[in-house]
This record gives sequence, structure tokens and C-alpha cells, in this order.
Amino acid sequence: MRDVAVIGVGMQKWGELWAKSLRDIFVESALLAVDDAGIDHIDSMYVGCMSSGLFSGQEHIGSVLADYLGQKNIPGTRVESACASGGLAFRLAWMEVASGVSDIVLAGGVEKMTDVSGSDATYALATAADMDWEGIHGATFPGLYAMMAVAHMNRYKTTREQLAMVAVKNHKHGAHNSRAQFPFPVTVEQVINSVKVADPLNILDCSPITDGAAAAILVPADMVSKFNKPGVKVIGSGHATDTISLSQREDLTALKAVELSAKRAYEMAGKKPEDIDFAEVHDCFTIAEIIVSESLGFFEAGGGGPAVEAGETDREGKIPINCSGGLKSKGHPVGATGLAQIVELTEQMRGDAGERQVDNSRIGLAQNMGGSGGSSVVHILEVM
Amino acid sequence: MRDVAVIGVGMQKWGELWAKSLRDIFVESALLAVDDAGIDHIDSMYVGCMSSGLFSGQEHIGSVLADYLGQKNIPGTRVESACASGGLAFRLAWMEVASGVSDIVLAGGVEKMTDVSGSDATYALATAADMDWEGIHGATFPGLYAMMAVAHMNRYKTTREQLAMVAVKNHKHGAHNSRAQFPFPVTVEQVINSVKVADPLNILDCSPITDGAAAAILVPADMVSKFNKPGVKVIGSGHATDTISLSQREDLTALKAVELSAKRAYEMAGKKPEDIDFAEVHDCFTIAEIIVSESLGFFEAGGGGPAVEAGETDREGKIPINCSGGLKSKGHPVGATGLAQIVELTEQMRGDAGERQVDNSRIGLAQNMGGSGGSSVVHILEVM
Repeated sequence: MRDVAVIGVGMQKWGELWAKSLRDIFVESALLAVDDAGIDHIDSMYVGCMSSGLFSGQEHIGSVLADYLGQKNIPGTRVESACASGGLAFRLAWMEVASGVSDIVLAGGVEKMTDVSGSDATYALATAADMDWEGIHGATFPGLYAMMAVAHMNRYKTTREQLAMVAVKNHKHGAHNSRAQFPFPVTVEQVINSVKVADPLNILDCSPITDGAAAAILVPADMVSKFNKPGVKVIGSGHATDTISLSQREDLTALKAVELSAKRAYEMAGKKPEDIDFAEVHDCFTIAEIIVSESLGFFEAGGGGPAVEAGETDREGKIPINCSGGLKSKGHPVGATGLAQIVELTEQMRGDAGERQVDNSRIGLAQNMGGSGGSSVVHILEVM
Repeated sequence: MRDVAVIGVGMQKWGELWAKSLRDIFVESALLAVDDAGIDHIDSMYVGCMSSGLFSGQEHIGSVLADYLGQKNIPGTRVESACASGGLAFRLAWMEVASGVSDIVLAGGVEKMTDVSGSDATYALATAADMDWEGIHGATFPGLYAMMAVAHMNRYKTTREQLAMVAVKNHKHGAHNSRAQFPFPVTVEQVINSVKVADPLNILDCSPITDGAAAAILVPADMVSKFNKPGVKVIGSGHATDTISLSQREDLTALKAVELSAKRAYEMAGKKPEDIDFAEVHDCFTIAEIIVSESLGFFEAGGGGPAVEAGETDREGKIPINCSGGLKSKGHPVGATGLAQIVELTEQMRGDAGERQVDNSRIGLAQNMGGSGGSSVVHILEVM
């Protein structure tokens, strides 16, 4: 297999982009990545999107979006793994370059979520859970993650305040990200007093409904010198699934798919959790970041809550997490999130992250999750 | 890149499978393939499915189906390219084995289409066309292919009878396929007198709405001797897109994505159209098989109609096409069709096709198409 590097990234400001269509936002971010790389064509394209069918009434978007990008006739592949669709698109683009099938591959992610009603969006998102065993009983994602939060709080004495501190930290980071949907700080009091969604999670514990896209350009590492930008090497890639239904899990306080996808990525990279300088992880709810930070091996089981309280996951902390603002502040257009993590990693590793810049950014990790942990994709990138 | 071979295939009888769910039919076909190969695990899985969201109210099926197959924790990837989703799943499984990332990979395809009303199914299928430029005007697939038929008949004098002969041939073949949805012969008169759908296409020119799944197991070619069955080698793989909207095409009488995907597969295989012994092609409508047989290079432009009339695409003809019965007789569960083509190729190349067996089956070609030709995937397989 060939070594692979990222040589361009792009994303627009995320939010409620009512004046733009699914096609518009994908092409906008893809062209930013193309310009960033300084290329004039791509050989192949992957697009991660959870549900263009239910959100936008359009399937077959590998073809639609290659066409609208002005690259008709190239292979255009849409992949879906719920909210991990973007991470999975990146993994397949990596595999296509690594295999030698193509040289210049675009990995994009997109979701246009605000063109349907709130209840239709909630239904569409619920189809990432087990509709036969969870959705049919009315369980939606805030409820599923609330059950995980209750289990974690019960076993490890994780506090309500520690959950809130995840949101506070990520909004503090996101306030420096001009592309974030909600680029402003919040306080622990605001989170705890915000409207209840599913006990113990309030609205400020939840990532928002967002329109947005993000993209990255991958090439063989030995071709990097031909392009505009310094390359960032993909040194590890891991993907795993777990039971989609929470009821079939042995343990609600850990995420098996996250553990396994991380183990596979660490092994490929020859790295350990303590080798990682900073990370972007899937904080779809505040409890998710706490559990993920444990399942990735950054902290022992039950250590995620105290770690955020101690500031260890702050931009200035031991292992900075979600310096982009995370899903919480930056927004969560589900199919695009995994690619936005790659955008942040790449900018940090180039030293281009401005006020969000972390001190040590040689090795970064991105973790992107589907549903309530039914799937997870982990990538480890290193400065070349 | 490593050479890759198919060592197991499976599919159930297709039809209106109201007693079985999406999960049931996928697992059923996957286990048939697993048994056929004689393996006890898989390393990774791809599933092609066009719209589990709109047809079945369930996304994230890479996770759902890995779990229900008893293989939770493996990577499970869902890919979508409308009716070419199955062919694309096979291509990605090939790429994963070829790259060295995994050794034993299952490629599956599935669609459960009869759990929604006919109008909802028509809507779901229409999302494979350009909903902004075609669907919004009420154009659905019979109408789009009818326009292609009119253009082809006008330019090349293709006759109404020649269209009907495609259906007659494929039903004649499918009458020998116990897994076909409609395993019975039809006559030219029956086709021409069947109810009009979109002039000149009648109901017997159209592939049906079907529930079904199909699967194949891929391994490195040098591992084949460790397994139950003779291997069938993947010697060519090609994928291409085209404008999704017919209005943007230069020519309605040829399919650019088919031409390009075939060119790429022929080049990889080092083969020409005349080297192909038999083929399974995407006859979603009778006109589709005629145009595809030209775009694959089996006949010159305009030669597809006369060729079917002369019996050249019969099982006993010069280039047997759709000996399985094709989409027309076998059924067309859109995400599964591309894998069912691989099932037929493999059985033919093993000499296991019974009454459907062709005389020369050393080199077979499968062509799977999305929408009205917005995407196409071609594979060429050869006896090892």
C-alpha cells in the first residue's frame, strides 16, 4: 500500500443555509479544497452523506455532485454510515489512493438538514438508530444518549457540571472559529438552566441541526512536493461497528466501536494514545465526548468527566480536544462532520489555525461516530 | 495491488417477500454466500442499497446488517449509487482486498421495495434522477427511458418489436432461473399489447418492483486454494458517472457512463469487447439493454436492435446477454441487482448454471447502471 497525504481542505461557514442547496454547499466546500491544493482536476470522488433521501429528496448524489462540481464522468461514490459518513468517505478515499487505483481523490461530506420540518429532521436522524427496536418505541438520539449519561453518572459519579463543562469548553474554542454555527461562549449555568431535552441532557448539551459541507484532497505521499501545500500524512485508519441497538450492548458506559476503531488506527500508525498531540472527537452530546475520550484511551474509564473539569482537554491542556468547537459549537451537518474534523486537523498541523492553534500539533486524531456508537471511524494524521 | 477472486455467492428467490424484512433478506443471501465459500467469518463488509431510508425507514445499515449477520464489530460500509449500488459495493470490496487492507470481504446488495405504496416507491426511485430538473416536472424513470427509446428509434430505426424481443429473450432465459421473480416466458404480442406506461414502453418493457438481496465473498486470488470453491478472478473494474439529468447530455442514444466504465474495465483487464464470452447487463427497461449492448462495444451504434432480433444475444447466440433473466424477469431490487449479476457470472463460470448454462463462459462481464445512466459500474471476471 502507498502512503497517502492530505494536500488541501475546505469548508464554508456552517449554519442554517437556506439560500443554498445541497449541491451548492457541497460544491462550495469542494472548490475551497481544490483551490487550497492548487489542483485542476480530481481522478475520483467520495461523498459522505447520511440521508440525502429523507432530508433533501435526492439519492444518487455521487453522480449529482460529480456533475455539479464540473467533474462528470469521474467515479463518484456516496457512502453512508449515519453521522460517521464523512469519516468513512475519507477512509475510502485513503484506501483508493493507498491501493494505487487513483492518484488525486476528493473526500467530501455534506448534509442539508434545514429544508425539512423539525419533526421530519428528528425522524430522519432517528433512522441512524435501530428503528425496529428503538425508533418504534419513540426513542430518538437525545433519549439514547441520555440513557448512556445516566449509566455513566451512576457508575463513575460523573457530574451534571462535568457534562456542562464539555459544552463550555467547546463553545470557548468555537468562539475563535469563524466557520462555526454558534461561535460564542456559554457558561455552566447557562447549560444547566437551558431547556430540558432528555434528562439529564439539556438543549445546550446537544449538537445542533446544521447545513454544511467539508472536503479534503488526498494524494500519494510521494507526490506531495508537486502541489501547493505541505502534506499531512495519514498514518492510521480504523473502522468498526457495534450493535446498533443499545439494548444489545454489554456496557452502556463505554463505546466498543470507538475502542476497536481506535485500536486498529493506533496499530496501523504504530502509536499509542499518549502519542497523540490533539484530537477532534464526536461530541454529538456532551456525554459522548466524555465516553469517547475514555474509549480512545486518553483517560481511564470514568476519567473523562474529571479530565474536562481539570482542563486537561482544553486547548492549553494535556490533550486538547475539539479546538474547532466540535459538533457542539461548530455545528453537525451529519454527513460532513467527519471531513470537518480532517479540515481542523490539517489546519492545526500546518500551523494555520490562528487563535485556535494548539502548541503541539505534530500528531492529530479524528474520531467520527454513527448513531449511538453503532459505527466509528478513527484517523491519525502526522506532519510530514 | 493484489489479484482478487470471488469464492462464494448467494441469493434467495426474489419477489414480493412480505414475510421478510430488509435485515432478513440481506442476512439470508449473505449466509448463502458464506456457506458457498465455506468460511466462518468475514473481515469486512460492503452493502449496496439505494434507499433504505425512503423504502424502509432505516439508515446506518452497514452497522445494522453487520450486527444481524452475527459479525458486529467488523467494518460495515453502505454505498449508494442508485440502481448501481450493488456493483459499486462489489467494486469497493474488490478495492479493499486488492489494497491489502482486508483478506475476506463480503459484498452484498439489498433492497426491500414492497413495504411502501406504489406511489411512494415511484417517488423513492425518482430520487435516482435529477430531482431539481427532472423529478420536479413529474418525470419518473419510465418517462426518461421512453425519451431515450424515442430518440434511438428515430435515429437508428430501432423497432417496437425489437424492444419487445429484449423482454421475450430475458423472460425465456429467466424461465430457467428458479430464483427469478417472474420465471415464465412472454411473447412479442404480449409485450406489445401490455398496458402502456410511457410511450413507447409498456409494462412488459419495464423491470419490476422487487424485494431481494445477493452477496459475494472476495479474497486474494492466491488464497483461493484454501477455500471450498474454485475461484473466479476479477480482472477488470471500471466506474464512471455522467450528467444525472438527460437534458445535459450531448446524445440520448448512447450512455457515456457505460462507455467509460467499460473502457476502464477493458483496459485494466487487457481485453476487448470481442473477448467477452457472455454478459449480464442492466436491462431496467428493454431500451436500456439495447443501448447498453452498443455502449459496451458488443455492437456498433444502432446495432443493438437488429442484434436482438437476429438472436445474437440469446443464450445460444454470439454474445449471450442476461442468461439469468436479467432485471426484466429475475426482478430488480435496485441495490441488489449488481451483486446478482456477479452471482450469475460466478455460477456460469463454474459451469453450475444448469439449464441456463452458456457454452463458452471463461470471461464474463457485468454492467450495472444508476438512474438513467448517471453512473455505471463494469466488472470483468475470468475463470482462474
